[in-house]
Amino acid sequence: MKKKFKKVNAAILIIGNEILSGRTQDKNVAFISNWLNLNCGIIVSEVRIIPDVEKTIVKNIKSLSKKFNYVFTTGGIGPTHDDITAQSIAKAFNVKYGYHNEAFKILEKYYGKKSFNDGRKKMAKMPLISKLIYNPSSAAPGFITKNVLSLPGVPSILNSMIENCKQYLVKGSKVYSKTINLYTVESNISKELGLVQNKFKKYVDIGSYPFFRLGKIGVSVVTRSTSKIHLLKVNKNINKIIKQKKIKILNI
Amino acid sequence: MKKKFKKVNAAILIIGNEILSGRTQDKNVAFISNWLNLNCGIIVSEVRIIPDVEKTIVKNIKSLSKKFNYVFTTGGIGPTHDDITAQSIAKAFNVKYGYHNEAFKILEKYYGKKSFNDGRKKMAKMPLISKLIYNPSSAAPGFITKNVLSLPGVPSILNSMIENCKQYLVKGSKVYSKTINLYTVESNISKELGLVQNKFKKYVDIGSYPFFRLGKIGVSVVTRSTSKIHLLKVNKNINKIIKQKKIKILNI
Repeated sequence: MKKKFKKVNAAILIIGNEILSGRTQDKNVAFISNWLNLNCGIIVSEVRIIPDVEKTIVKNIKSLSKKFNYVFTTGGIGPTHDDITAQSIAKAFNVKYGYHNEAFKILEKYYGKKSFNDGRKKMAKMPLISKLIYNPSSAAPGFITKNVLSLPGVPSILNSMIENCKQYLVKGSKVYSKTINLYTVESNISKELGLVQNKFKKYVDIGSYPFFRLGKIGVSVVTRSTSKIHLLKVNKNINKIIKQKKIKILNI
Repeated sequence: MKKKFKKVNAAILIIGNEILSGRTQDKNVAFISNWLNLNCGIIVSEVRIIPDVEKTIVKNIKSLSKKFNYVFTTGGIGPTHDDITAQSIAKAFNVKYGYHNEAFKILEKYYGKKSFNDGRKKMAKMPLISKLIYNPSSAAPGFITKNVLSLPGVPSILNSMIENCKQYLVKGSKVYSKTINLYTVESNISKELGLVQNKFKKYVDIGSYPFFRLGKIGVSVVTRSTSKIHLLKVNKNINKIIKQKKIKILNI
């Protein structure tokens, strides 16, 4: 009997003018995507980076939450005026927005009643139907609203919270991958690689990415599949091409 | 007489499974965005990262090219089977796709007639209406099709080509920005900053971004505007807050 592969996908919505303007280099896409892939068998199928503008956030939440199994948002859940992710998600789903009891208690305890000012209180405001994603670094929780998981933009804090997303996620089939680094140029193997891809297109994705290392040009051939058997078959085919063409392999 | 500000915007469409999967860290968004901002007064208003799937590329080209003044695509213009940007753009605009005369000549000259194999020839295939974006690093040109500029995914090659995009772009008003780094937490200034933002919301964007440096927590307050005068006014207001609250400034 054939094993059935379960595809679960996600989108990432990066909210923040600082990423769009080029001021800040995003690091969350690669981290979230790798984590989802390795730990949950979830494939990130689209990423969008958008500004801190309410109607833009609302529109994107609406469309992405329909199109994908999960949406991860990053950024815009802090205490300042440009942090409008929570209120925008409430609008997108047309649900009540206000102080979330559990979040309020967590933050009040963390800061102490005296230091719990309006800015800090704002971080307890979110859709009332949300469940919390706990934050071991700096208390202010993330939250999940329907299929949308909202995390902060600061990479170190996001990284510390990601494990707390797991309980809310349905797992997909694990994606296996293999990388072979070759001392050749893409155009030397493109035809043969294309034929292999065509033969196995139902099961395996073959990617080809040029690299430059210590003055030498090379190509990383990356194969990805939910089926170990087909991944093996494809790599046998690729190894044949490498032998035929007498291409050197770079072990890194 | 008031000077009229001209807003020109762009979207970036990153095409490539390797960025989505987290295998490769994107570096092109920050580079393109900074370059457009500094050299052309063009604001990047949206970024999307999508897989090497034709119908997804076609759909995104169609919608983004209508919505923004320019669209920059990166990736998918090499010689391998997963390089399908050019053919997808031709489909999106319903224009003829085939060997581009000028591109063919450039590549034939670069590789020499004998070494000009099918993979290399593929890089001369593009929408026939396209104009070329010359490539000083590795010959294979980018191209502009209507308002869509297509560049390669390898950052060093893209960087070397970006100046050759300038001739095709209409300039917008320059965006000025100022950053003040403060030794405080966001929630200490969020209320006051929100009031200033509200007062100047027509002219200036104020962003607030936490940072962590040598074990200390801080906040970068970034103001951006096409109007130097309003930027100055806003920063006077921010400096008042800093003085009132006796916040230390970090000079970096």
